[in-house]
Amino acid sequence: MIPASLRWQGEADGHLDLLDQTLLPGRLAWLPCRDVDTLVEAIRALRVRGAPAIGIAGAYGLAIAAGEAARDGLAPEAARAHVLARGELLACARPTAVNLRWAVERVVAAVAALPVGATAGELAAAALAEARHIHEEDRRLCAAIGLHGAAILPEGGVLTHCNTGALATGGAGTALAVITTAWDQGRRFDVFADETRPLFQGARLTAWELVERGIPVTVLVDAAAGQLLRTGRVAACIVGADRITSNGDTANKIGTYGLAVLAEAHGVPFFVAAPSSTFDLALETGDDIPIEERSPDEVRSPLGVQAAPAAAAAYNPAFDVTPARLITAIITERGVIRPVSREAVRAVLAATPDSAEAPSRR
Amino acid sequence: MIPASLRWQGEADGHLDLLDQTLLPGRLAWLPCRDVDTLVEAIRALRVRGAPAIGIAGAYGLAIAAGEAARDGLAPEAARAHVLARGELLACARPTAVNLRWAVERVVAAVAALPVGATAGELAAAALAEARHIHEEDRRLCAAIGLHGAAILPEGGVLTHCNTGALATGGAGTALAVITTAWDQGRRFDVFADETRPLFQGARLTAWELVERGIPVTVLVDAAAGQLLRTGRVAACIVGADRITSNGDTANKIGTYGLAVLAEAHGVPFFVAAPSSTFDLALETGDDIPIEERSPDEVRSPLGVQAAPAAAAAYNPAFDVTPARLITAIITERGVIRPVSREAVRAVLAATPDSAEAPSRR
Repeated sequence: MIPASLRWQGEADGHLDLLDQTLLPGRLAWLPCRDVDTLVEAIRALRVRGAPAIGIAGAYGLAIAAGEAARDGLAPEAARAHVLARGELLACARPTAVNLRWAVERVVAAVAALPVGATAGELAAAALAEARHIHEEDRRLCAAIGLHGAAILPEGGVLTHCNTGALATGGAGTALAVITTAWDQGRRFDVFADETRPLFQGARLTAWELVERGIPVTVLVDAAAGQLLRTGRVAACIVGADRITSNGDTANKIGTYGLAVLAEAHGVPFFVAAPSSTFDLALETGDDIPIEERSPDEVRSPLGVQAAPAAAAAYNPAFDVTPARLITAIITERGVIRPVSREAVRAVLAATPDSAEAPSRR
Repeated sequence: MIPASLRWQGEADGHLDLLDQTLLPGRLAWLPCRDVDTLVEAIRALRVRGAPAIGIAGAYGLAIAAGEAARDGLAPEAARAHVLARGELLACARPTAVNLRWAVERVVAAVAALPVGATAGELAAAALAEARHIHEEDRRLCAAIGLHGAAILPEGGVLTHCNTGALATGGAGTALAVITTAWDQGRRFDVFADETRPLFQGARLTAWELVERGIPVTVLVDAAAGQLLRTGRVAACIVGADRITSNGDTANKIGTYGLAVLAEAHGVPFFVAAPSSTFDLALETGDDIPIEERSPDEVRSPLGVQAAPAAAAAYNPAFDVTPARLITAIITERGVIRPVSREAVRAVLAATPDSAEAPSRR
């Protein structure tokens, strides 16, 4: 089967189904989100995760919010205020990924564009339409990223970190889409997946997606990446991104930075794959990105089993920042940024998406 | 309490008690080893681990083997053959740590030096005496390593990997002894411990030892070391070793190499602490060290809970090799090797241990 992270059920009075990723790979369970609180909890608890997927979930969240207003019989003005307040709550559910705020603000703008007096039902319809638009766009972005990336992926083994596939997006993924697209083009190579502590997204989600698609995968502990690179079995590392600043510095899952340092030490190219919505051009460098710190229990109790004594403290940054100089190329739906510089970022992001959907090998 | 890894009970007809480290920190249980098979299983299953500790356990194993011969009423020649055969089995129980073979061969030599016709009981007494000698030596080595290391440890936070404390040795430890010795000298600093996947020796054992000793400790996932180093909170990294070749290349727990690369990238000194028995001068470089690969289930099922799908393969090297050029200094009981070179290794190992037991700050 082809995995998916979420699906809207019904029309404007419907709800959002999230595949609860905390239960994978052991259980495939869909979580129905009929109110914003459920969705915010799901985002915070990483039932849905991956910057593009939480952006899409946040977008649908505004349709849910408008649905709440309709069910509660709110008058137009109160309904609009309710949607905007819920939008702010959704936008803040996770602080590092920029797509979430970006997507929420797009839907808020669509709602705000409705004439004064629009009913809660009309707000819901407008929000749902825009969320569907964002979702469909993301499918196309993933496909374009997959093609652009496959065109520059060198021959040989590929190592990835965290999960950047269908579960992390509204489509085929970002970094993982590059891998699956190259595979679907008939190329054959070893795929290695860092397990990605503390939440094991690599072992639980990336390995599961690849197994589901029939692509052989080898999982390793994050700390084994150096030894794997020394064996020469990896021709490229490819990861996703949660936020990219205007100079190309990239915030991504904790461990990405260390992997980039190791890749450089071994002369292995290091690719970042992300849609243009991941860029936060308001930020000059990665030093400006807020790094979310999560619960110490994610470290002390892996998969819910206590490892460290309760009296031990834990340091648990969810992300780190990889400086642009360690990134060989950033693969977007609009084209490939290579080498990574402020000017190249600006130039590629200015390209129209359509011109980039039939990339040529470069 | 001050933790310990093992203790011999009784005299030559006694047995070895191992603290079963696979159950820590949840349970403190001693495993009595009355036959070599139990001990070999315990070594393979990492119930006892840490290069010095498994060396000492292996040494006591020959006393157990001679005890088996005595219980079975073997004649002198058969008893001696039995002990030698069990020695070979013990020496091979884990392939990377050189201390195991070194310790076993020392006891074998002590047994072999007995006159032909020595009874099984006499073999057992000789083996036990030599094993106790090795154990007591290790206590002194640990103390000397702790003092040498504390003398060169810079002010500021310290990051360590895996477990190199009392649980890993017959004394206070190697790298961890440096930390606890500096602490006992009244110095105060942040102590960070990598959790050390796949078997969590950092989270389970190092954190437990430090908590037991009243030293505050902060655990992190291995992949967070890069971000921690970027914050500037770490003034030194210090690790143990399973085997060091004549040029200073060092095999140690998987992840050590990646940490050394990161330390270099941040200008943070990277120390290795190990007794001189860890050196394998027969090997020219780290390329000659055999790297043990362990069961894929250690990766797929952390702490026994399935993370990766069973259909995923796993790459599970237990060790990696850190090249000498990334090591600031190697701290031994005979002195500090700094900078690390073939000549410096030779010179420090040639020093008499006694001259080194009152190190001065350098």
